[in-house]
Amino acid sequence: MDEKKNPWTVISKETRYENAWIRVDHHEVRNPSGGPGVYGVVHFKNHALGVVPIDEKGYTILVGQYRFPTDAYSWEIPEGGGLVGKPLLESVQRELLEECGVTAGQWLQILGMDLSNSVTNERGTAFLAWDLSEGIAQPEETEQLRVLRVPFWEAVARVERGEIRDLMSVAALLRVALMACQGQLPETIGRVLKR
Amino acid sequence: MDEKKNPWTVISKETRYENAWIRVDHHEVRNPSGGPGVYGVVHFKNHALGVVPIDEKGYTILVGQYRFPTDAYSWEIPEGGGLVGKPLLESVQRELLEECGVTAGQWLQILGMDLSNSVTNERGTAFLAWDLSEGIAQPEETEQLRVLRVPFWEAVARVERGEIRDLMSVAALLRVALMACQGQLPETIGRVLKR
Repeated sequence: MDEKKNPWTVISKETRYENAWIRVDHHEVRNPSGGPGVYGVVHFKNHALGVVPIDEKGYTILVGQYRFPTDAYSWEIPEGGGLVGKPLLESVQRELLEECGVTAGQWLQILGMDLSNSVTNERGTAFLAWDLSEGIAQPEETEQLRVLRVPFWEAVARVERGEIRDLMSVAALLRVALMACQGQLPETIGRVLKR
Repeated sequence: MDEKKNPWTVISKETRYENAWIRVDHHEVRNPSGGPGVYGVVHFKNHALGVVPIDEKGYTILVGQYRFPTDAYSWEIPEGGGLVGKPLLESVQRELLEECGVTAGQWLQILGMDLSNSVTNERGTAFLAWDLSEGIAQPEETEQLRVLRVPFWEAVARVERGEIRDLMSVAALLRVALMACQGQLPETIGRVLKR
């Protein structure tokens, strides 16, 4: 099988909904078996970004907010949307400063991801950041955020207990935890995250 | 701050798109700061399910398919959609049998998650399964799947190299890897996943 070849055939495509963040396209298709069907795809205009910041004491930063779509409060790593085409690192650095008032001297990309690939084309990238300095938080007007500093392993325990459910946060925290457990972290933060 | 209280106010709500899997509702809102805005929410009708199966030699199973929304081939853990209200375990057991022709005697829930909570209300649950037996695969007509058995740690290496991008797969594989690294797995599979 040729992995490059798309086995779906598009018969027609129509945009049914659009706002500043998403566009929903309805397709009539033939599926990979040749049968007729429909496919509604949610196209995301932004690239999802997240960062696990680690300070010199081994603490990370969590951001709390009420999420309208899930109708629930959610504790997450600092996250934001990078505009497609803009450098991801610049966007995530801006988010960390705006939401948490923190800048970081060191950045490492730790994950690339498709968040929900059965329905959306949303892509995301997560980073690890360290060598932190204090700046001035500038949250957006629409956001009502709480910022919490917790020991990194306490954040991992929250994932394990099911208290952090945001999937990008879950994956990024687990990735850093596994790197720590396997001795794969850069030496500076490997030392502070040693258990 | 009361985490239970939704700080968003809905002024109006209108369904703009619907198919068998999703419904898109457009809302006029007041955001947490009181300002006017709009919010398009993608409501999912199914609950996302995934499973990391581990056999007695320490191999797991990956499923490959072309994903229409991302326009890319994707290797993932066995996944499927459970109907809301139906027992999750029963749905994921059916998926594992249909896609891979495998049944498992032991199941452990390892993650609960919100896949993309800035736009959707999609929820997911991932399991670890072991004590595997061979059955007969019965893929759905619309699916053109490949099934691949690889050593568990090779699947983790694919996550680390960015070759597995499906976020539920990424998180579930990392969770099992961290459990193995920290000695938290049930003894039977802890032994086969020891490095």
